[in-house]
Amino acid sequence: MPFTMAVNQNIIEMEYAVRGPIPRRAAELRKEGRRIIPCHIGNPQAFGQRPITYVRQVLSLLEEPSRIGRERVLKKISDGEHASLATFADDDFISDYVVDVAEDMLTSMEAGVGAYTESKGPLFIREAIAGYIDRRDGIEEAGDVPSNPDNIFLTDGASEAAKYIIELLIADPSDGIMIPIPQYPLYSATLRRCGGVLVGYYPDEDSGWSLDKSMLVESLQKARDSGVNVKAIVVINPANPTGAILDEQSGRDVVEFARENDLAIIADEVYQENLYGSEFISFARLVGNEDVPLFSLHSTSKGYYGECGHRGGYFEVRNPPRAEGTDTSFIDLLLKQASVSLCSNTMGQALMYLIVSPPEEGSEPYAQFAAERDKILGDLYDKAMMVKDAFQEMTGVESFGRIGALYHFPRLNKLPEGTTDFDYCMSLLENTGLCTVNGSGFGQKEGTHHLRIAFLPPKELLEQVLPEWIEFHNRYVG
Amino acid sequence: MPFTMAVNQNIIEMEYAVRGPIPRRAAELRKEGRRIIPCHIGNPQAFGQRPITYVRQVLSLLEEPSRIGRERVLKKISDGEHASLATFADDDFISDYVVDVAEDMLTSMEAGVGAYTESKGPLFIREAIAGYIDRRDGIEEAGDVPSNPDNIFLTDGASEAAKYIIELLIADPSDGIMIPIPQYPLYSATLRRCGGVLVGYYPDEDSGWSLDKSMLVESLQKARDSGVNVKAIVVINPANPTGAILDEQSGRDVVEFARENDLAIIADEVYQENLYGSEFISFARLVGNEDVPLFSLHSTSKGYYGECGHRGGYFEVRNPPRAEGTDTSFIDLLLKQASVSLCSNTMGQALMYLIVSPPEEGSEPYAQFAAERDKILGDLYDKAMMVKDAFQEMTGVESFGRIGALYHFPRLNKLPEGTTDFDYCMSLLENTGLCTVNGSGFGQKEGTHHLRIAFLPPKELLEQVLPEWIEFHNRYVG
Repeated sequence: MPFTMAVNQNIIEMEYAVRGPIPRRAAELRKEGRRIIPCHIGNPQAFGQRPITYVRQVLSLLEEPSRIGRERVLKKISDGEHASLATFADDDFISDYVVDVAEDMLTSMEAGVGAYTESKGPLFIREAIAGYIDRRDGIEEAGDVPSNPDNIFLTDGASEAAKYIIELLIADPSDGIMIPIPQYPLYSATLRRCGGVLVGYYPDEDSGWSLDKSMLVESLQKARDSGVNVKAIVVINPANPTGAILDEQSGRDVVEFARENDLAIIADEVYQENLYGSEFISFARLVGNEDVPLFSLHSTSKGYYGECGHRGGYFEVRNPPRAEGTDTSFIDLLLKQASVSLCSNTMGQALMYLIVSPPEEGSEPYAQFAAERDKILGDLYDKAMMVKDAFQEMTGVESFGRIGALYHFPRLNKLPEGTTDFDYCMSLLENTGLCTVNGSGFGQKEGTHHLRIAFLPPKELLEQVLPEWIEFHNRYVG
Repeated sequence: MPFTMAVNQNIIEMEYAVRGPIPRRAAELRKEGRRIIPCHIGNPQAFGQRPITYVRQVLSLLEEPSRIGRERVLKKISDGEHASLATFADDDFISDYVVDVAEDMLTSMEAGVGAYTESKGPLFIREAIAGYIDRRDGIEEAGDVPSNPDNIFLTDGASEAAKYIIELLIADPSDGIMIPIPQYPLYSATLRRCGGVLVGYYPDEDSGWSLDKSMLVESLQKARDSGVNVKAIVVINPANPTGAILDEQSGRDVVEFARENDLAIIADEVYQENLYGSEFISFARLVGNEDVPLFSLHSTSKGYYGECGHRGGYFEVRNPPRAEGTDTSFIDLLLKQASVSLCSNTMGQALMYLIVSPPEEGSEPYAQFAAERDKILGDLYDKAMMVKDAFQEMTGVESFGRIGALYHFPRLNKLPEGTTDFDYCMSLLENTGLCTVNGSGFGQKEGTHHLRIAFLPPKELLEQVLPEWIEFHNRYVG
């Protein structure tokens, strides 16, 4: 080792349990040849979840536009049932609809996927996102507030969005942001990185992780009393790590609370398609005409598409504040931040476009698209129930809230004295190969213990490992 | 506009001329229907430079692995010269070699391009990069220091790498980093963003932007005298914005200077394939066995591939320091930073892999690959010369240094009194549609004026616009 250097203390102190000691130990065990079931992270395709065919066909053509003409001819030959192509199934060929979509996208992109785009991302994609948001939120009547493409930024996943927003908001080491406990460590880590104060608030576990204004006010008051200048509140809905879906009244309370206390809302809504039958109520809809600044984050990584590796995402801003002492809107400052990276990756941008623009009903690829989507969401729900049912057979394990996102966050009520959920998760890993994350990695009410598990393994694997877990658990808690 | 909020002052003060007022004005003019020639940014595919076929064929298959079997069959049918496929040219079909590469990559990636990878990027890609570095630097003998894949991080373009490194190094507002003037504003912007001090040093323009130790020592001493704790020196080679190639002695001086003063070197080497006949001498080679920490950055955006939109890149660390007061290596801290974004985008990773692993000589795709590569690099050199020749006809325009990267940075010696290079560039844009960046956007010696132009437009367009520029120029300077 050569010499030493003083480094940014925030980076030393930053923690990120999802890539922490338990997953690191899992990687070691895996190298030794052990079966590891990576439930510590919401990474569906790592478990063999297949990508949506429609999406990948278009992306594939965007990479190789010279194939567009060839695909049209092949399709024609195959429609003529030419003997030479009899070896192929019908769906080995790409429909004209898909080829048209790729061609239209390339026309709109002008220079294909190999050129830098505008820093915010191409306008036609931001317009498509705005259209999606308005359809999702039922924006129809006069007086409804439509989404503005100028206030949408495409990003490399939602992580980048969180970084831009928090970096901009933390003007001073006494600035703080309210974050739910438990929370996804992206927020605590980014806040630490930017040198701000984490102000925790505690959704009520036993009532399904609901919120009310009094608990928010209490947390705010406590922070203000200790000299923290609170700027914003983060809400994750559906939640990570709890998987719970926020009820409408809790959402309204957050908006009212933010308005009354001049806070911005940072709404992490990346699981907006993982509700398994419940209705998604966006913060854009809850904010409506209220003068509350809102940053809403979405991603290509979750939903039924699960395209984590492509690092696509966007954030939308409503009611952007003005930077104090200037005439500059937050939009201009966020644009400056985005400019330093020139633009987000174009394949992630294109993917985000395809997710907000699914094939039209009745179009050639629609039936397969809808079947794939429904199968993935149906399977996710089934697997969530399989895991939840297993909790019934584990002594002292309780899980609360409507099922959303990709996670359960069960409370472990009967850990042996002197042990922590970290010990439990490490032991679970060593004994069964099941890799989860301890509750303390996300924060939790003092004296409670939890773990987060992503309900992603294939059903056959769950059938195999859940009984092992039950057995391990009941032995562990004695 | 709703309410105001105090924001991070560093973001207010950060500047980024490459996306600044001149390009913004160009975008407005373009909307009005004016011909705009975007030479303000190194974005080759925006000028119609075609991507390397080999690279895109593989990427296309990675997006749609189900096509792999089909492509093999199609190739076989076409090799049999079946009448039904007579409509296609031979190279409409993808060679078995390409299909094999895609298949091997998918095997190594395990879960395809839709899953998060390790935060550093997949090991097989980091190994391929290490192999590329060793071949490039002629690492053969015992005693040579080979590249270590564990010290390589894949990133979303080189911008992300610069952010990680500078964010980690700036521990305190009195910490500073030495940066060449002129410099690419990524460095000044990121340094401002992280709250550190920019310590400029001034390569000698008239001797082709060469460096020597005395100028480096002088700049360091001045900074130390004013209380700045200098941690590192940035070198961009081939340089941006000047396009100059660093001579070997200048490189050796930088290493010696860094060693004597306990500084790290941040070597931006993204233009390492844009030398047009000159030899590239990497900082890894110059550092050799010396105990100097080195961060070397590379990218998929430049070279002959020019894949800016894909946002691929990597950085390699040599002699990583230990963080003061801890047992923690820089590698672990950089890994923690990378972890918060989970991983860089997989298509950018795959592209980086393909760039460091070109098709083998004699393989099926090799001839086309080599022809495309040589044509792009040959054209770039021709275009560089066309622009340089035009300077001869402009009163008081001088350009120094061997030609590298994608830019010229001519000095404008005869601007009318009271005008700046910003005025000149804006006027050039309004008069000819040629969008360049004023020298002051990169920094320059006081009293001098420059502009940066990317020599990317097609030759026919240059033939048309260069005479217009000459005419504009000689009129402007009177």
